[in-house]
Amino acid sequence: MSNHRSIGVLILAAGKGTRMKSDLPKVLQPILGEPLLFYPLQAVHNAGLSDVAVVIGHGGTNVESYLSAACPNVCSIWQHEQLGTGHAVQVAREWWSSFSDVLVIPGDAPLLQSDSLSLLVRTHLESSSLCSFASFHAKNPAGYGRVTRTNGAISIIEEKDATPEIKKITEVNSGIYLFNTLALASHIDSLANENAQKEYYLPDVVGLLSDQKQHVEAVCFDNEEDFQGVNSPVQLAAVTAIVRKRIVHYWMELGVKCSSPDTVFIGPRVSFKGDVWIDPFVQLYGSTEVGEGSHIGSHTILRDTQIGQFVDIIHFVSIQSSCVEDHATIGPFAFIRDNACVGEKAFVGKFVEIKKSTIGSGSKVPHLSYIGDAQIGCDTNIGAGTITCNYDGTNKNPTHIGNRCFVGSDTMLVAPVSLGDNSFTAAGSVITQDVPEGALAVARARQKNVEDWVVRRQGNRKEGGKE
Amino acid sequence: MSNHRSIGVLILAAGKGTRMKSDLPKVLQPILGEPLLFYPLQAVHNAGLSDVAVVIGHGGTNVESYLSAACPNVCSIWQHEQLGTGHAVQVAREWWSSFSDVLVIPGDAPLLQSDSLSLLVRTHLESSSLCSFASFHAKNPAGYGRVTRTNGAISIIEEKDATPEIKKITEVNSGIYLFNTLALASHIDSLANENAQKEYYLPDVVGLLSDQKQHVEAVCFDNEEDFQGVNSPVQLAAVTAIVRKRIVHYWMELGVKCSSPDTVFIGPRVSFKGDVWIDPFVQLYGSTEVGEGSHIGSHTILRDTQIGQFVDIIHFVSIQSSCVEDHATIGPFAFIRDNACVGEKAFVGKFVEIKKSTIGSGSKVPHLSYIGDAQIGCDTNIGAGTITCNYDGTNKNPTHIGNRCFVGSDTMLVAPVSLGDNSFTAAGSVITQDVPEGALAVARARQKNVEDWVVRRQGNRKEGGKE
Amino acid sequence: MSNHRSIGVLILAAGKGTRMKSDLPKVLQPILGEPLLFYPLQAVHNAGLSDVAVVIGHGGTNVESYLSAACPNVCSIWQHEQLGTGHAVQVAREWWSSFSDVLVIPGDAPLLQSDSLSLLVRTHLESSSLCSFASFHAKNPAGYGRVTRTNGAISIIEEKDATPEIKKITEVNSGIYLFNTLALASHIDSLANENAQKEYYLPDVVGLLSDQKQHVEAVCFDNEEDFQGVNSPVQLAAVTAIVRKRIVHYWMELGVKCSSPDTVFIGPRVSFKGDVWIDPFVQLYGSTEVGEGSHIGSHTILRDTQIGQFVDIIHFVSIQSSCVEDHATIGPFAFIRDNACVGEKAFVGKFVEIKKSTIGSGSKVPHLSYIGDAQIGCDTNIGAGTITCNYDGTNKNPTHIGNRCFVGSDTMLVAPVSLGDNSFTAAGSVITQDVPEGALAVARARQKNVEDWVVRRQGNRKEGGKE
Repeated sequence: MSNHRSIGVLILAAGKGTRMKSDLPKVLQPILGEPLLFYPLQAVHNAGLSDVAVVIGHGGTNVESYLSAACPNVCSIWQHEQLGTGHAVQVAREWWSSFSDVLVIPGDAPLLQSDSLSLLVRTHLESSSLCSFASFHAKNPAGYGRVTRTNGAISIIEEKDATPEIKKITEVNSGIYLFNTLALASHIDSLANENAQKEYYLPDVVGLLSDQKQHVEAVCFDNEEDFQGVNSPVQLAAVTAIVRKRIVHYWMELGVKCSSPDTVFIGPRVSFKGDVWIDPFVQLYGSTEVGEGSHIGSHTILRDTQIGQFVDIIHFVSIQSSCVEDHATIGPFAFIRDNACVGEKAFVGKFVEIKKSTIGSGSKVPHLSYIGDAQIGCDTNIGAGTITCNYDGTNKNPTHIGNRCFVGSDTMLVAPVSLGDNSFTAAGSVITQDVPEGALAVARARQKNVEDWVVRRQGNRKEGGKE
Repeated sequence: MSNHRSIGVLILAAGKGTRMKSDLPKVLQPILGEPLLFYPLQAVHNAGLSDVAVVIGHGGTNVESYLSAACPNVCSIWQHEQLGTGHAVQVAREWWSSFSDVLVIPGDAPLLQSDSLSLLVRTHLESSSLCSFASFHAKNPAGYGRVTRTNGAISIIEEKDATPEIKKITEVNSGIYLFNTLALASHIDSLANENAQKEYYLPDVVGLLSDQKQHVEAVCFDNEEDFQGVNSPVQLAAVTAIVRKRIVHYWMELGVKCSSPDTVFIGPRVSFKGDVWIDPFVQLYGSTEVGEGSHIGSHTILRDTQIGQFVDIIHFVSIQSSCVEDHATIGPFAFIRDNACVGEKAFVGKFVEIKKSTIGSGSKVPHLSYIGDAQIGCDTNIGAGTITCNYDGTNKNPTHIGNRCFVGSDTMLVAPVSLGDNSFTAAGSVITQDVPEGALAVARARQKNVEDWVVRRQGNRKEGGKE
Repeated sequence: MSNHRSIGVLILAAGKGTRMKSDLPKVLQPILGEPLLFYPLQAVHNAGLSDVAVVIGHGGTNVESYLSAACPNVCSIWQHEQLGTGHAVQVAREWWSSFSDVLVIPGDAPLLQSDSLSLLVRTHLESSSLCSFASFHAKNPAGYGRVTRTNGAISIIEEKDATPEIKKITEVNSGIYLFNTLALASHIDSLANENAQKEYYLPDVVGLLSDQKQHVEAVCFDNEEDFQGVNSPVQLAAVTAIVRKRIVHYWMELGVKCSSPDTVFIGPRVSFKGDVWIDPFVQLYGSTEVGEGSHIGSHTILRDTQIGQFVDIIHFVSIQSSCVEDHATIGPFAFIRDNACVGEKAFVGKFVEIKKSTIGSGSKVPHLSYIGDAQIGCDTNIGAGTITCNYDGTNKNPTHIGNRCFVGSDTMLVAPVSLGDNSFTAAGSVITQDVPEGALAVARARQKNVEDWVVRRQGNRKEGGKE
């Protein structure tokens, strides 16, 4: 980029998106676990552009919250009334005036690629143009503004003003513009809203510049798909399908194996190291990372989860905001959440839930257990049906279990409670007091067999199962 | 419709469908949770036609049962021997004689649209035709009867009788006919079965009318897909895919969001209110209804279930014949069935089964529980591992739990049993007697720690996990 | 086949498959649960060819292990250095010299059909050709060796040696050759490695034969898809999709019903009897067999499992290396593994794991249980929450439960332990001693209600649920 030029990026994200039929503002509609707005922000970031503002309006408080959490360097600019794209740029005038150029992009174009933005910027900077905009060839141009090139002068003719001849033009305006801010400033207030929608249209600035014989560039792209906007649930799904395919293909090229890539969903912030195997019907979202040699079995849903190397996620597993260390095994039918950590070579098995707990390396929770607010040491075995009774009706209380313990099946650990290293509990015990190191805790009644009870019992047992 | 005309609809559903290779009659083969026959019945209903009879034969008892349960106004007419479409219409003669016109449609054409039927009816009524049938342009007409139009006279030439010239015709007979019943009556007995199959063919009536220079109309459609029949498992799947896509698209146009519409299955009787979000790999069948703002997470299967507003079905959830009220949360890994009701803001969590039970508003069953034949009040907390022991080997018995109770983890509720409002049970208790309001019930042994048990124990514990 | 001819098949499987980016050798990369190499072996077997050797190299020990387990009659031949296809054939010389002809096929062409091999063999045997190879018409021939036919002489021109004219040829070499072994033997040592890769190329033998005016045949196929090789994760997935589709279609033609065939995965060794219904999102692998009239519900994963007739696998079920007998019902949310056997009309229900156990006919394990290393008789009911405590920290111990038993909910069966026929256990009991026939075993404390405990309790219980 030129030394004398500084580029601000203005993303227009104030619209309601009425056709989405949703209370959630359009730019927050999710695509693979991220709001739509994430995608243009990512494209801008990948194009090396770091001064970014977003014009917000409809549902703006929510958009602002997202931005301040996800990209605190991005500025939010309120457009309280939605009076068109021209108006959106007007309200942001103070912000973009400090740059030599401003790139305006729609907030609802999630397929936009950073390469396209880079090319537009490069062309703009290398030319002496006051406005460079991206155009593309549309298979069906109906509805778009057509791009005309007459004696070097470039104009955008809106559908409603187009003659039949002009309607045949397939080069159309993408809604992405790069303006010299001085030129923009001198025309942005001249926009009129004499149209059906009573809106101020940004492309009219291009017309004003053209009318004054100012240099306007149209950089024409042939990847129509990339410029697709989102206006309805059907379009949101169509765009999601393309993003999904792109991301899955990207990782497969880097060595990830998917037996059925069409059934795998990978969010844009997920990352893999090398030779990972993903079975059908898997979803990975958020900041999830998966290490070398790990296997993600079918019907797995991971969100914001770190998976180490050579981990085996068997199948039917849901993990959120947690980590699983190297060589651990999870599932089938397991749920892990809320900053849980499963240690190296540990095993979390069947019908087991782990919440805010640490499972030490080599420890096992194989069956039918709920482990919440617990610290479990290394090489400890948790019997089937064990439950941390962490809630007393008022507070959540912690459980500590040492190393090399053997917790018998169906042990109730009434928290707060501690089990020392090498301690045992007998099956079916309710543990309410701490168990010293190396001790066996028993809390159960002695068995009594009532002989011939069935014969003596009144009435007959009707055969059949509990249902 | 004309005042003087009354239309009966005769659906031909007696065939075996040999190529389906199934004991289930073809018209009962399921498509998105409904029998194939549901779809032509729905098209007829949506076309405003209410006098309907179905000719049954193969597996007729089952078809009759379906009809009497699902559409009691529809008449069943037995065709004990399957001797062709002409014969099917012969056996129904008494029924259709009471109408001025009879619309004959095949029972195995699930893609038929009501608009097509309406247009055929309108054309028939407005013309003076004695028979109007639907034709369509087939990409590959081989096997179909071709429609010829010579000097205004319309005939149907069967494949076997077609000259090479006629075989080139792509307009073909759909098997949907609207007859003036007097005209039909005077020809239906003239059909011959001098053919390889020894069957009486209904299209031959068209030929008989044509031969007598009677007015026959062919209403030609261009939506070939809609007239597709089902004769094999492959065709059943192909048709299912089209129905699936149509239904999903219909709801998305009304505001339902599907991140992956290709992986979502919605039955034809399911309905949504507004802004519902459906994740990948979801199936909704039967009379299921989903309210505004609800979220249906991945790997959910709902059948005949009412979901209120702003309900969160997390993922891995199966619900059958039950209801979930507003703002409730379900899952992951939950199974709810048999007229269970989960109240407002209630929570049914992980590895929990609810059967024929009511969970009061604000109550929670978070982990590893089986609740059967129980009434649970409001704001009650059911500890992890709690089980209603509803079956005594002979009968199923009820459990009552009041409001604001705290049932400790691993409580066994031996039914019949009642817990009063505000009562508590201690973790690990087996409750066999009623618990009064505000009382604490305890049924467990005291804990004893055997110090140094591990050291004194004979032999060494081999490390490793329960597997 | 001619009496005087014997055909050996040499499969080339020594390559690394660098682009797979995997430690697993390419020919062991899985396709629907079988290694890639399974598929060419299957095609060879189905073509009636039984003398087979595989040239192994990269990851050869693993390939050898697979072969000795899966097809012990197949010979492994080590190629320690991978110096090209010509070299691979050189190292196998001793093996193929004992046959009159040798068929050489690449180990990474899983779509190869036995019909194509049979046709190649037949053509070769019927002609007097010294080498017959399979060619095919490629849509995009770039990269392939082109087949030229000049005055009856057939040559293979590699891409790098091709003139622009020859590059236009779309008939290309498939890499499948059938050589007269005497002819092969007299040329195989003449190969040079004067090329960029310093490799010995097998197709050069064709050139040598052609140069000497020897009879070479090219059998040209038009099914390009079948000759597709696998070099990258993307190609592996593409090929998997085709194999998947072929297998599902094959079974549907035989009467299997899939409502959504695109979401069903069936391995090549799975088999069905007749009228089976498969719901969406199902995976069946290994040596799985499914009997007449059974239903495989959604989200089922079966591996090496025998399913009888009229079995109902509800949904969310995983079964491995086990069997389920006629009329049994499984799920939802069940996991069965390690040589478990579920008997006739038995029921394994919700959140239940069965391991190395037998569930007798008519018995039920309906909810939240872990049954491991157990023998359960007939018509026995296992209460919800029952656990076999099979692991004592050192050994796995067996549990025996007789016929017509009623095991109360939350019974802990501390193995080794036996329950006689017709015996009962009380809910919540820990059973450590054998229970005689017809006896009731109780091991629990008596319930005590502490009246007004809640009122007297210090502090207030904050309302809310365990989370």
